[in-house]
Amino acid sequence: MRELILGGARSGKSGYAEQRAQKSGLEVVYIATAEACDQEMGARIALHRQRRPADWLTLEEPLALADTLRAHAQAERCILIDCLTLWLSNLLTLGEDRFKCEREALLRTLPSLPGQLLFVSNEVGQGIVPMNALARRFVDEAGYLHQDLAQLCERVTWVVAGLPQVLKG
Amino acid sequence: MRELILGGARSGKSGYAEQRAQKSGLEVVYIATAEACDQEMGARIALHRQRRPADWLTLEEPLALADTLRAHAQAERCILIDCLTLWLSNLLTLGEDRFKCEREALLRTLPSLPGQLLFVSNEVGQGIVPMNALARRFVDEAGYLHQDLAQLCERVTWVVAGLPQVLKG
Amino acid sequence: MRELILGGARSGKSGYAEQRAQKSGLEVVYIATAEACDQEMGARIALHRQRRPADWLTLEEPLALADTLRAHAQAERCILIDCLTLWLSNLLTLGEDRFKCEREALLRTLPSLPGQLLFVSNEVGQGIVPMNALARRFVDEAGYLHQDLAQLCERVTWVVAGLPQVLKG
Repeated sequence: MRELILGGARSGKSGYAEQRAQKSGLEVVYIATAEACDQEMGARIALHRQRRPADWLTLEEPLALADTLRAHAQAERCILIDCLTLWLSNLLTLGEDRFKCEREALLRTLPSLPGQLLFVSNEVGQGIVPMNALARRFVDEAGYLHQDLAQLCERVTWVVAGLPQVLKG
Repeated sequence: MRELILGGARSGKSGYAEQRAQKSGLEVVYIATAEACDQEMGARIALHRQRRPADWLTLEEPLALADTLRAHAQAERCILIDCLTLWLSNLLTLGEDRFKCEREALLRTLPSLPGQLLFVSNEVGQGIVPMNALARRFVDEAGYLHQDLAQLCERVTWVVAGLPQVLKG
Repeated sequence: MRELILGGARSGKSGYAEQRAQKSGLEVVYIATAEACDQEMGARIALHRQRRPADWLTLEEPLALADTLRAHAQAERCILIDCLTLWLSNLLTLGEDRFKCEREALLRTLPSLPGQLLFVSNEVGQGIVPMNALARRFVDEAGYLHQDLAQLCERVTWVVAGLPQVLKG
């Protein structure tokens, strides 16, 4: 079962995804796409890490998501990917070729992966259109990615104030 | 039947509106409010245009929306207006008088128009309040317009990740 | 009964909260957290004020919300607090200590307050992550506060285009 979990900043989407993983009863693999580039990011990562059960396997993968998923997805496993927006941002920084290649690979790989998959991603497109061209590109690509993933996921959930709302499934 | 279709940037709101128009079985008139002022906008417009069926009549009207609707609305037609936020932005650039006049005209005209009407508009008010006073004004006017139109429409839909959620109707 | 009413800028959340207060049939106390620091804010406050019934008691309290609620909450009263995001912003400007103290006090006080309580707050986390560190902090704290309050409220409502959607309750 594939689930896309969307929500704004600090909406509780990660917490909800972690509950879903916990309740799956499966072995949990957590894929973190964040890199601790600065102090603020380091603190955010530490906070997320504290909250996670000690028996979860944590992998850090900022770029090669499709490869990592293929290597670790198994019928009796739940893989939680947190979050797609950072992965997208990491890729867009590296340039068009790498971005297109990884994006394609993810969408192509997804339908055949076994086990449970939980994708967490930020809703970023409901504010004012950013002045900065790169930010605008990022908003566009996040939106397109969410649309494509929503098609491939059996369940799509939108989290507001910690309250999950089922959009699909 | 009047429908307001709201969604963030790249939420799939235009695609959903186009499906609704297609499924109406009526003759479709597409009113584009965008003007190709720069390359980025030109590319966005071209992308939208490619997706639309060849037998739709396309009109470009960045300002005089009420007049255009009065001239083209017919019982056996579906008119798709994409999008109101650009129209609003075009008007606010021209100054208060024109803005007020066109806004009033739209709201006054709407209830008596025959046929099906699909209004697409961007949700822009769920991010941080912009520092720029004009942007703040734009967010305010988009919000007020959505509230007024939601009253006049039989159906209001909110699109996230390509998934339409009915808010009214 | 405690209700949290969330919505974007100009989503109609205040208008909805005022309807809820009106329909409660209870004596209404309105707590405004805004201060008229500049002309724009003054105009927004005046607009809100005009809309409110003359028999509502209005209190202005930009900071000490828990104290004010304790002093005025009564079984036969409905207290409308508009809005929490401004209160949060006022507190964050004053520094960490005051912020933590008032935030804690509100969450601790809330469960034991009698009567009806309506909290209005802005959704600010669904746009692009702001560049400015203070704005980012504000988005974070707004999100965390909404999550905590949503737990303590029997009802949580999200308003779009003036249309209330029940998220909880």
